[in-house]
Amino acid sequence: MTAQDMMVTVALKSWNQALDRATQLCSNLTDEELQAEVAPGRNRLIYLWGHLAATSDSLIATLRLGQRLHPELDATFLKSPDRAVAELPSAAELKRIWEEINANLTPALAQLSAEEWLERHASVSEEDFVKEPLRNRFAILLSRTNHLGFHLGQVVLTKKRG
Amino acid sequence: MTAQDMMVTVALKSWNQALDRATQLCSNLTDEELQAEVAPGRNRLIYLWGHLAATSDSLIATLRLGQRLHPELDATFLKSPDRAVAELPSAAELKRIWEEINANLTPALAQLSAEEWLERHASVSEEDFVKEPLRNRFAILLSRTNHLGFHLGQVVLTKKRG
Repeated sequence: MTAQDMMVTVALKSWNQALDRATQLCSNLTDEELQAEVAPGRNRLIYLWGHLAATSDSLIATLRLGQRLHPELDATFLKSPDRAVAELPSAAELKRIWEEINANLTPALAQLSAEEWLERHASVSEEDFVKEPLRNRFAILLSRTNHLGFHLGQVVLTKKRG
Repeated sequence: MTAQDMMVTVALKSWNQALDRATQLCSNLTDEELQAEVAPGRNRLIYLWGHLAATSDSLIATLRLGQRLHPELDATFLKSPDRAVAELPSAAELKRIWEEINANLTPALAQLSAEEWLERHASVSEEDFVKEPLRNRFAILLSRTNHLGFHLGQVVLTKKRG
């Protein structure tokens, strides 16, 4: 395994661990439990879970890996704050969407070579990328892993302490 | 720049961004403001900041980059939960410790080559590392960046919304 392959493997493992933790924390909750706020007046779990689902789904497009599955999530979970949209998916629906999005994303991430990870992401033009080669897919993977961890730190606050 | 150098640069940038955000969020708070809890009954900011300082300091040792500066932090901020130890550093002291630790750590991280990032970390023996080469310094860097992000997600809950 080359040095760059090793680094990609480590980074993907880190992403997948964070994703698994999100699944464990959210996917067995009832509709009622998903109404819990992470702190008084702050985001509810249902919103954060939808927000993470929309982020995973949009990753497919940001990494230029194909069509995303649920662009309709963005209006509620990326472009609006919690409680701005009254009609949210149920726990069962969101669980189905979450699984569908990740079943689409995980193999797409796994098939990229190290060289492909260093190609540009969708938010930078070919012209700008020549000058700013750090704006690559690998940078997006790390920043999305950190984003996931940031919200996991909030989600765990709703759990009873052991 | 080789592919592996590019990946190291991206990963260090991600770590440094998270660290800067922690500095911005914590280092101008008063002793009183650092008493805020991230959610009712949960960790106070003073504890989380000390916990992050102890983690940064221990990183020097985990990465086999030399002596750490403040091992005395561990008893309060890593081995005990918040409120178990009555005597905590003041805001001014913790700020000084935080700056000292990161002034020691940042150049030590910057001088490692890509090959050195893929060497073993201190918690794995040379023997085990032959079988488990993913237990390298690079994996520690990504996991500590995620750990930092996890707690930043909690720290921001104490901030007024814009």
